Amino acid sequence: MRVLVAGGGAAPEGLLEAFAAYERALMADDLSAMDALFAPGPDTVRGDRDGLLVGHEQISEFRRFRGGAPRRELGDVHVQAVDGDSAVIVAVTLAARGGRGVQTQLWRRIEGSWRVTAAQVGPPAQTFDATVWRAVGSPLVASTGRGPLTGETVAVKDVYAVAGFSIGAGVPEHQADSPVQTEHAAAVARLLEAGAAVAGIAQTDQLAYSIAGTNEHHGAPVNPALTGAVPGGSSSGSAVAVSLGAATIGLGTDTAGSIRVPASYQGLWGLRTTHGSVPTAGLLPLAPDFDTVGLLTRDPERLARAARVLVGGNGGGLGDLLTDPSLTALAQPEVAAVVGGYADRRGAQQIALGIDLDMAYEAFRVHQAYQAWQTHGPWIEEHPGAVIGAAGQRFAIASRVSAAEDAAALAALGQFRAALDAALGEAVLVLPSASSVAPSLTAPAAEVDAIRAATLRLTCLAGITGRPALSVPGGWVDGAPVGICLVGPRGSDLALLARFHR
Amino acid sequence: MRVLVAGGGAAPEGLLEAFAAYERALMADDLSAMDALFAPGPDTVRGDRDGLLVGHEQISEFRRFRGGAPRRELGDVHVQAVDGDSAVIVAVTLAARGGRGVQTQLWRRIEGSWRVTAAQVGPPAQTFDATVWRAVGSPLVASTGRGPLTGETVAVKDVYAVAGFSIGAGVPEHQADSPVQTEHAAAVARLLEAGAAVAGIAQTDQLAYSIAGTNEHHGAPVNPALTGAVPGGSSSGSAVAVSLGAATIGLGTDTAGSIRVPASYQGLWGLRTTHGSVPTAGLLPLAPDFDTVGLLTRDPERLARAARVLVGGNGGGLGDLLTDPSLTALAQPEVAAVVGGYADRRGAQQIALGIDLDMAYEAFRVHQAYQAWQTHGPWIEEHPGAVIGAAGQRFAIASRVSAAEDAAALAALGQFRAALDAALGEAVLVLPSASSVAPSLTAPAAEVDAIRAATLRLTCLAGITGRPALSVPGGWVDGAPVGICLVGPRGSDLALLARFHR
Repeated sequence: MRVLVAGGGAAPEGLLEAFAAYERALMADDLSAMDALFAPGPDTVRGDRDGLLVGHEQISEFRRFRGGAPRRELGDVHVQAVDGDSAVIVAVTLAARGGRGVQTQLWRRIEGSWRVTAAQVGPPAQTFDATVWRAVGSPLVASTGRGPLTGETVAVKDVYAVAGFSIGAGVPEHQADSPVQTEHAAAVARLLEAGAAVAGIAQTDQLAYSIAGTNEHHGAPVNPALTGAVPGGSSSGSAVAVSLGAATIGLGTDTAGSIRVPASYQGLWGLRTTHGSVPTAGLLPLAPDFDTVGLLTRDPERLARAARVLVGGNGGGLGDLLTDPSLTALAQPEVAAVVGGYADRRGAQQIALGIDLDMAYEAFRVHQAYQAWQTHGPWIEEHPGAVIGAAGQRFAIASRVSAAEDAAALAALGQFRAALDAALGEAVLVLPSASSVAPSLTAPAAEVDAIRAATLRLTCLAGITGRPALSVPGGWVDGAPVGICLVGPRGSDLALLARFHR
Repeated sequence: MRVLVAGGGAAPEGLLEAFAAYERALMADDLSAMDALFAPGPDTVRGDRDGLLVGHEQISEFRRFRGGAPRRELGDVHVQAVDGDSAVIVAVTLAARGGRGVQTQLWRRIEGSWRVTAAQVGPPAQTFDATVWRAVGSPLVASTGRGPLTGETVAVKDVYAVAGFSIGAGVPEHQADSPVQTEHAAAVARLLEAGAAVAGIAQTDQLAYSIAGTNEHHGAPVNPALTGAVPGGSSSGSAVAVSLGAATIGLGTDTAGSIRVPASYQGLWGLRTTHGSVPTAGLLPLAPDFDTVGLLTRDPERLARAARVLVGGNGGGLGDLLTDPSLTALAQPEVAAVVGGYADRRGAQQIALGIDLDMAYEAFRVHQAYQAWQTHGPWIEEHPGAVIGAAGQRFAIASRVSAAEDAAALAALGQFRAALDAALGEAVLVLPSASSVAPSLTAPAAEVDAIRAATLRLTCLAGITGRPALSVPGGWVDGAPVGICLVGPRGSDLALLARFHR
């Protein structure tokens, strides 16, 4: 460490001691010391490559959640004093792991004590983000043809076969244990033939059994649209790669919302295709009766182009736009207001679907769990400890669903599907893509569970009916994106895109 | 854009206008306007993920070289005024390509005008650095055995066969045009069997015909040890990946310095192995009479462990340490001082090798060029425009070397080799790894050419004799690393590492 004071004088009295104390607290992960050295109040800010945290409280919460900063030493420390009570310190940091970072802090003497009121932390250049990608290249796999997707790059969720790679599915042991694929999955092959290249294989929640995007093995990728929030899953890596411009098309899957939820949380366009409309050859299943191929993009034109490649020439007619206020009311009031406003502007008719959502979701949940265990149970039992955290708990619950329970759920699902088809016909149902904006990474478990329960009651309707669902960026709540979901009749994927592209 | 002033008051008079003017100048790449809005003098600093630029001049040069900033808009702009003449502005930036960044600036009113005295620019999270990697994963290729390298990760220069990938060699058309490899190169296979995984395939200068590390297709990767400097090549990606901790072992090649130069420029340990001691099966050649397998690490213990896997049990005896002051004198005086100091501390005997270095290098250059054209000429002629910039010019020159000229060069090389072997015997020669510290990315072409000419006169000695060369981090000149090169007798790779590990 070498201290360089601009102009050549001495640093303001006590400043370097406070700076050193902060560095010690950081290395010791001494949260209360760090909290004390940052100025209290709502105006204190801290930025890093994941965004800007605003207010002492949010910064403190972030530190509590982070669990320590990477080891580092200090290189040159540049001090620019404004006056005896204010200075900016720009420091070069030398990471123990390798590489050099930069950090800028505004220090103010407040009531006699030096405190940081603004900070920006720039870690060493990161060459590969393993929370977003499992493997990535320029490109990882070249296109195999020319067509409407020439020039596009795809982030392929790590549940699709990519020749030359095993399927990891967000579980390191699964990646190590699975055979290297010799052929691309059908959906991947179609995109490659149409001119797209595979940018990379993107991270997913474990075995795609989550809507949070917080894979416990690889870590949660950043939500580029909302600092400190979960990205949404399970197509988390594909969505974040698209949000960050690292790929132009995200290829994901949607069983219970895994396209619609990250689309909503990140302000993307997302399409859950009609169940069965895109071949699932080479796709690792979760619950085949609900699993669908899905797409994520930053703009509707590209989404339509990619969808046409995947689903071919489908496109039934579309009827009226309908909305059921009891569905919208499942969302946070601010989200419901955005969705309600969209429905009103589009002249949606209000209806009452008249089904018991709790029972419909319960039937969906039971059959999804039963199929998930049929699909992955034997492997999970042979690999104890491979699937961890919330997904692990979910599979444990799934293991206890009996065949009789599943049969009852299937019967109920048939009735709900018939009832929904009768109520909707050719109409398009507008509802929230998710029940909330993206929750904070530090949100309490009870809050996360409540949000999840409400979201799944909304997303399961497309699952039960096999209908396509388009998630459209619908607006903002306090800077957080809100998605609007449009559920059309089966086979109307392209028609939905044509009608709701803005 | 939304402006939020801490404490709720107004921003200091004129500040936001200056801030807006800077943003306009940035988007217009108006260099003189940006220069005027940054405070003059040596104390102004600007940091980003590539490091910290110090002084108005360095910042201005960087901007001139950059060629424009990525398109963006501003999100929330947080203003913290210290007094009427000083304020920090922290702004969220919204990249047109996707993602959000953060930028911090200290503005001061100097002689009536607002100017930036300190700035940190944090672009949106980067998930993949294509200047370092051509493809990367976690891992990209799993280990195939357990052994002394278990847990290590390798950055494989993109001239080695990695099964499932074509060989790109830093040339996009070559990557597209080359067959997908079905087997790993011998060196890659040995590392995998010893327990290492392949982190990724790392970028190289075009067809490895450079020592700069400034690939014109993919861009120069950052030199993590020296802000604004070239990384050194041609094993540039492998070296930078190791410097940044993104891999623990860099697998490269060294024909005319492509391991030693990046090791020297980045403060790494580097080993050019004895010519022929490691099988080159699956390695794209440049000039086979000089091509060698090489390694880069951050520490000597790991280098020795990896070297043992590659070269097996070689290890002849080592004689005295010798130094020829006329070689050291080819380097910049400050570099020569570091090398001279090292030689003195180790008690190196001064000798005069007594060869005409200009003629030795000329013979090396001609035969390298002749072989390079034999190797790549037909492909380059079939793909005009594929190899560009300095490497392209070098191949154009190589195309004009006649068989007669090559025969004369070969004869001269035989004489120089005999003379060097006679002078050195079992001794170890200490000399600079490169003639300078890493030159700036913005250095004038004449300066770069002079540095290159001097460096190649030093590096060609190992090339001519086939001797192994170990580059050791030897010290610093104004914060820039300097490498010491130790050339031992053929087969002494492991003995060199055992003797010079600190």
